[in-house]
Amino acid sequence: MLQAALQSGAARRRAVFEVFARHLPGGRRYGVVAGTGRVLDELEHFRFGDEELTYLREHQVVDESTLTFLADYRFSGNICGYAEGDVYFPASPIMVVEGTFAEAVLLETLILSILNHDCAIASAASRMRNAAGGRPLIEMGSRRTHERSAVAAARAAYIAGFASTSNLMAGHTYGVPTAGTAAHAFTLLHDSERAAFEAQIASLGPETTLLVDTYDVPEAVRTAVELAGDKLGAVRIDSGDLAAAAQEVREQLDALAAFDTRILVTSDLDEYAIAALAAAPVDGYGVGTSLVTGSGVPTAALVYKLVARETASGDLEPVAKRSVGKPSRGGRKHAYRVFDERGHAETELITTSGTAPEGGTPLLRELVRDGEVVGREPLTEARDRHARAVSLLPQEALHLGRGYAAIPTEFA
Amino acid sequence: MLQAALQSGAARRRAVFEVFARHLPGGRRYGVVAGTGRVLDELEHFRFGDEELTYLREHQVVDESTLTFLADYRFSGNICGYAEGDVYFPASPIMVVEGTFAEAVLLETLILSILNHDCAIASAASRMRNAAGGRPLIEMGSRRTHERSAVAAARAAYIAGFASTSNLMAGHTYGVPTAGTAAHAFTLLHDSERAAFEAQIASLGPETTLLVDTYDVPEAVRTAVELAGDKLGAVRIDSGDLAAAAQEVREQLDALAAFDTRILVTSDLDEYAIAALAAAPVDGYGVGTSLVTGSGVPTAALVYKLVARETASGDLEPVAKRSVGKPSRGGRKHAYRVFDERGHAETELITTSGTAPEGGTPLLRELVRDGEVVGREPLTEARDRHARAVSLLPQEALHLGRGYAAIPTEFA
Repeated sequence: MLQAALQSGAARRRAVFEVFARHLPGGRRYGVVAGTGRVLDELEHFRFGDEELTYLREHQVVDESTLTFLADYRFSGNICGYAEGDVYFPASPIMVVEGTFAEAVLLETLILSILNHDCAIASAASRMRNAAGGRPLIEMGSRRTHERSAVAAARAAYIAGFASTSNLMAGHTYGVPTAGTAAHAFTLLHDSERAAFEAQIASLGPETTLLVDTYDVPEAVRTAVELAGDKLGAVRIDSGDLAAAAQEVREQLDALAAFDTRILVTSDLDEYAIAALAAAPVDGYGVGTSLVTGSGVPTAALVYKLVARETASGDLEPVAKRSVGKPSRGGRKHAYRVFDERGHAETELITTSGTAPEGGTPLLRELVRDGEVVGREPLTEARDRHARAVSLLPQEALHLGRGYAAIPTEFA
Repeated sequence: MLQAALQSGAARRRAVFEVFARHLPGGRRYGVVAGTGRVLDELEHFRFGDEELTYLREHQVVDESTLTFLADYRFSGNICGYAEGDVYFPASPIMVVEGTFAEAVLLETLILSILNHDCAIASAASRMRNAAGGRPLIEMGSRRTHERSAVAAARAAYIAGFASTSNLMAGHTYGVPTAGTAAHAFTLLHDSERAAFEAQIASLGPETTLLVDTYDVPEAVRTAVELAGDKLGAVRIDSGDLAAAAQEVREQLDALAAFDTRILVTSDLDEYAIAALAAAPVDGYGVGTSLVTGSGVPTAALVYKLVARETASGDLEPVAKRSVGKPSRGGRKHAYRVFDERGHAETELITTSGTAPEGGTPLLRELVRDGEVVGREPLTEARDRHARAVSLLPQEALHLGRGYAAIPTEFA
């Protein structure tokens, strides 16, 4: 495609591509923008090196003039987009990429891969955060997804409100707070559960989290408090009926005067299981599989579509395909969120005119100007923004059931 | 966990961890082993460098003696496993890791991440291959998953029988054959569909694949054949009722004497949609989202469990947790596939005795010996093995509906 466009000359035309979702998969009420920071990081290193060019040449993937173009490739256009952590709705133009066709089309896979993955994870994580109602969530899903997705998933979950991750690389790379607990293997390794607990407390202090369901829960809790005293930080339950088990363990801990010992639960939790534990004496949730797989929606259904391009006369003209069942709207978009008098989000307003509606908050911010990244920000800003954005949504947005987007998208 | 075990001395105990699935998620009839080669590649580079150690020290994740251990870390144990491309069933020990507890427990996340992702993709891909009945499948899902998962997904799909991928990095890294087509943006970029087709044919020759559903399909097909003649390689349809559209396009192509022009279809295909097109005049399928998300099963539910460890007296003792609803069997396993007199797989036989059953084919092969990789093989061997393994399964294994594993797992 690139080679043919370079040859026809059309590759030099100015083009505008937009990233948006035609719908929110899974009947979600809102999507969460995540991955923007990773797009900016990757963009700065997105080059074709000797190895890649040699591969393309030897396998005759493209011709010599295309190889020359790729060797010099460096995105020199503009990108704006929704701020990371913000929410989005069907048709929200969460990223707008402007450059020559050649330089903008090459970014499609990079941008969509990052945003489709990270937005899916963050959107699921945000639902879990709503379900957890202020109790901390630990991201523990690294083992259930590709080794690199795991790091990005921990980052996305943190944006959406998770407290920490067990993925140390996410701590190292992105500064996400880390946490962890012992596995059953640690208990099984020792000659007895008592010996395992002793070893863990000796090394990590009584404020550690002991895993109490390897053999018999009541016996493990008794041993744990006997060894760590009422300073025992937490116990983790990873099997059985978690609500009933948490209740029993809480009663036992209280009877042993370990009033401050917290109860952490894990075991295939998703937002529904978390919500079902709202009345149980649980102090924190560890979430694995369902988080890193987007809880039923592993990809955000975002597309990257050409919406405008330069004509032969040099004007920028709206374009859109007419394929059956895949609606696209031509023209470069601007987006605003309109709030009602109580400050709740009411409408997602998309325009092609560039005229701001009265009282609408503009949603697009500059990310890349003439190829230079200008929109970088600390991860905690995205996290704070997300909490704020959700708090401004109508109450229905927090419903876990399938439904329509929390606010309508309107085109002006 | 590692720090406490190093301090208690238990970390030096010999340990055996096994990777297996308690069940096949999604009611699948068989799982596909994929990722083994990637585990071996990663294992050779799995070290803790200065940057990682500095992070761990500065954030006080572990103590100094653990940092010293990590700085010298290098897996020196043994790994055996099912051959890549083979099929597996509930409880099949697809990878067995033996070493000290300290060195083996550190591999848990690396091994599970790779196998959970790659096996999930390959298991979905294999079903698509069965549904396609010999028609070629192109992997086109890179944009729908994390940018690195995309490369691994293309590799896994190739093992399971896909013909090619649109991911050039998978071609570069793993030698997977690559293929691609133009996008709607290419057509929209030009002043007319005709101009776009002319540009593509001029650059890539008439044997290229033209995308015909940007505006009006019959008009596009007419233009395509007018420009490329009966040498036109293929047309791609990406929207609408694909069966009806393929039928109409085939009739139109035949009427235009373009008898050899193939029809490629894309548009959210999964194994069910592919099966539903069996009677349509389709020559190939491009599969994206559902492939890279495991078609409803994005992770393979594989776990990494300690099954045996050295006792104080130096013997290797079977161990297993007793957590409610999460059955584990202690002891180091051996696995055999038993075939009936017609050569069809009949039973997956798991033993802890090491005595081979009569006529059973051993499934575990050596992958790593004393830390050295010895089980590397070309990707095409895994691909060939997969085709063979599926051909030996009972007919029920090819059913797309939910059900039980195609053969029972028995413990001897």
